[in-house]
Amino acid sequence: MFDPIEKLKEHLRHASVSTDSAFKSGMDGSREFLGDLFTEMGLSVEIVDTDLHPIVLARREGDPSWPHVVIYGHYDVQPADPLELWESDPFEPVERNGRLYARGAADNKGPQMAHIAAVAELLEEEPDLPLRITFLIEGEEEIGSPSLLPFLEGRKDELSEADLVLLSDTLSPSSDQLVVTVGLRGIVALEVEFEGPKSDLHSGLHGGAVYNPLQALFEVCSSLHDEENRVAVPGFYEDVAEVEEWEREQLKALGSDEDAYKSFLGVEAFHAHPGYSPFEAIRYLPTLEFNGMGGGYQGEGSKTIVPSKAMAKITCRLVGNQDPFKVGALVKQAILDRTPAGIKATIEMGHEGSPYLVVPPGRPNTPENQSDRLARAFQATEKAISENFEKPALFLREGGSIPIIADIKRVLGLDSVMVGLFLPEDNLHAPNESLNLDVLKKGIRVSKSVLKALAADS
Amino acid sequence: MFDPIEKLKEHLRHASVSTDSAFKSGMDGSREFLGDLFTEMGLSVEIVDTDLHPIVLARREGDPSWPHVVIYGHYDVQPADPLELWESDPFEPVERNGRLYARGAADNKGPQMAHIAAVAELLEEEPDLPLRITFLIEGEEEIGSPSLLPFLEGRKDELSEADLVLLSDTLSPSSDQLVVTVGLRGIVALEVEFEGPKSDLHSGLHGGAVYNPLQALFEVCSSLHDEENRVAVPGFYEDVAEVEEWEREQLKALGSDEDAYKSFLGVEAFHAHPGYSPFEAIRYLPTLEFNGMGGGYQGEGSKTIVPSKAMAKITCRLVGNQDPFKVGALVKQAILDRTPAGIKATIEMGHEGSPYLVVPPGRPNTPENQSDRLARAFQATEKAISENFEKPALFLREGGSIPIIADIKRVLGLDSVMVGLFLPEDNLHAPNESLNLDVLKKGIRVSKSVLKALAADS
Repeated sequence: MFDPIEKLKEHLRHASVSTDSAFKSGMDGSREFLGDLFTEMGLSVEIVDTDLHPIVLARREGDPSWPHVVIYGHYDVQPADPLELWESDPFEPVERNGRLYARGAADNKGPQMAHIAAVAELLEEEPDLPLRITFLIEGEEEIGSPSLLPFLEGRKDELSEADLVLLSDTLSPSSDQLVVTVGLRGIVALEVEFEGPKSDLHSGLHGGAVYNPLQALFEVCSSLHDEENRVAVPGFYEDVAEVEEWEREQLKALGSDEDAYKSFLGVEAFHAHPGYSPFEAIRYLPTLEFNGMGGGYQGEGSKTIVPSKAMAKITCRLVGNQDPFKVGALVKQAILDRTPAGIKATIEMGHEGSPYLVVPPGRPNTPENQSDRLARAFQATEKAISENFEKPALFLREGGSIPIIADIKRVLGLDSVMVGLFLPEDNLHAPNESLNLDVLKKGIRVSKSVLKALAADS
Repeated sequence: MFDPIEKLKEHLRHASVSTDSAFKSGMDGSREFLGDLFTEMGLSVEIVDTDLHPIVLARREGDPSWPHVVIYGHYDVQPADPLELWESDPFEPVERNGRLYARGAADNKGPQMAHIAAVAELLEEEPDLPLRITFLIEGEEEIGSPSLLPFLEGRKDELSEADLVLLSDTLSPSSDQLVVTVGLRGIVALEVEFEGPKSDLHSGLHGGAVYNPLQALFEVCSSLHDEENRVAVPGFYEDVAEVEEWEREQLKALGSDEDAYKSFLGVEAFHAHPGYSPFEAIRYLPTLEFNGMGGGYQGEGSKTIVPSKAMAKITCRLVGNQDPFKVGALVKQAILDRTPAGIKATIEMGHEGSPYLVVPPGRPNTPENQSDRLARAFQATEKAISENFEKPALFLREGGSIPIIADIKRVLGLDSVMVGLFLPEDNLHAPNESLNLDVLKKGIRVSKSVLKALAADS
């Protein structure tokens, strides 16, 4: 008997932080765990080498006429720091009040386990199920999936004949209200370094003569938003798509509470664009966000220097029809244009990913050529959510990015059915990440229903 | 026979970083080294406890009619980081090409050793020299000398009957051109913390809804200077004193080379106020300098968060008649006034010190009540520099701060004769700090001449 919570705990003990090479053994352990698990389930496992972290591919083959679903997930997690803010070890999962606490519990090892458990149970119950299944679990999602695009291009013949992708790496607003995500923001990352004097200077002996690179960085970075928090980079909003009316209606049906959201975030005021609620802003608008910055002396006490260098990490979230390469180049050029004399700017482009949009069946703007199997999967998802959760599903765009979803559409021609199995209180990318175990259990049932409905089309 | 270079090396091996409690043993070792050295020289040593790092006091008593000189120095040093930029261990002194490399070689253990060696040699040569000497070596100069003011107030009766203070903790422009410093900038430190959301947020799920505290800090900090690099804080320049004509002439006589200074600093352009050369700006103008800043993710790769917190360390250098408490309060209020809704600002005031100005004898604006012994010390200094160095001494203000000099004037009524024994290429407060050993040797001769001239007044 497959025990999804015990299996999940086992997976969470592997500290698979992809961005930091110090966590190599956690990455290796996580991959081995998955390989063993899929092998136990009777799938054929292939570990596909990449330039960085290998991809786990696990297949259930079958008759070519059978429907073929690709189930996507990622085994890498965000760094756990600042460690001192965790109430328990981020890599030793602990159950408290129906939740499982650990880094990766919600993003993405928990939700991913819903589909693994669904397949395990289905294959136990119906060993002859007429459904082809390919698990595709990558190890570089948190650093922008640099290896997945070449992988998709290399496996295009094999994977593009699948019918659709099923995954859970998106948000639902509460444990009784599941959301099927139909849009994701794209992303483009930049790292800016400003260099002034060639080494740190005594701020008494030399202060007043030279441009302080921290001051220059403050000035240039502060010029990247206008007074109403719009991004002040020429051309930034050029390709932003309109929002469809049915989308606005679904978002209204969500009935979100601004005061509760404020209190959840711990802020006294929002800072969305004028004319947009915070819930609209995070879904429909692009951003330019400072993720980190540093320069000069940050230790105990003070150090009276004019520092030599300052650094800022920036990511832009993109929507609609924005192109990450184009937007990245615009931001880079704006920073270079605004860098003052006496300061040397170095800008490195980081990862990037396109935004994504899919229209479910039965909407006014559903594409006429939408495949029956994709429509069937959306309908089964909607039905299963209604049966297992208190409220009917909502089909919404969300603010997060899974750039690979746009890549899969472009390279393989496949759309994705994204069932949101983590919640706002799960603290993704933050200390004390956790997963609601009741949502996990219901999510397993939804996944089973969708897979069964697909198999019924064979 | 006293060997000043060997003694200096011994002192430099003690890693006496006062700002970081991890270096306690270095502080203890440095203090013990000084105590032993002064005892060997026949002085009576007193270690004066303070709230943090004790003061070393060493006295040569004598007839009350003898002149009395206080020789000031500090045994603490700046932190050595970033360690990877040092060519040799900062706490294992190494001689290369007539220079001694180590943290503290120039600031202040080397120049301080000039006076210690001068006294040691004088007392060997003239055991009956009619001069009272008090060495006052503190351990908190690099953190703003918090204990020295209470010490001075407690020892006011004993110390205020001295004639003057002699010290070397100031800059000369080159090894053939010594400067006697007649003005120092004051300082006031602030640390600003901005807090936005109560913990780091996923920048996809929540980006666009809230004020990013890094962005807010960029915006507020960038508002603290105007487009011409003047400090944009109301009232900031209110008490700045005029510069005397003889001061401008001495600075012209310095004949500084802007291109050479640019190349020394490693910048392509200066950033002084319009109408001021960089050499004037660092002496005559106050600054608001960012010494360090940090927030969000600064590690390898990227982390897609809206950070919870951002921090900036600020020090203002003050001139003329500015009051550090008043200026600090103005800057704090400006930051608070400009902090946007949704951001919580916390500002801690750090150390502070007043600016200082003394007028040597024979200038148009020399005070009429200047003491003969102070005048004699200035004249002997000027003469000894002419005899030992290639060019005559210049009497200039400098940009650095030794707040205690203003405190000594205010509490004890004593002026200071400041003989500059470190050079721009000595890399104070920076990696690869070093001392020119030829300057040290000549400095010992100058100090001996001044002490002899003072003794001759008995």
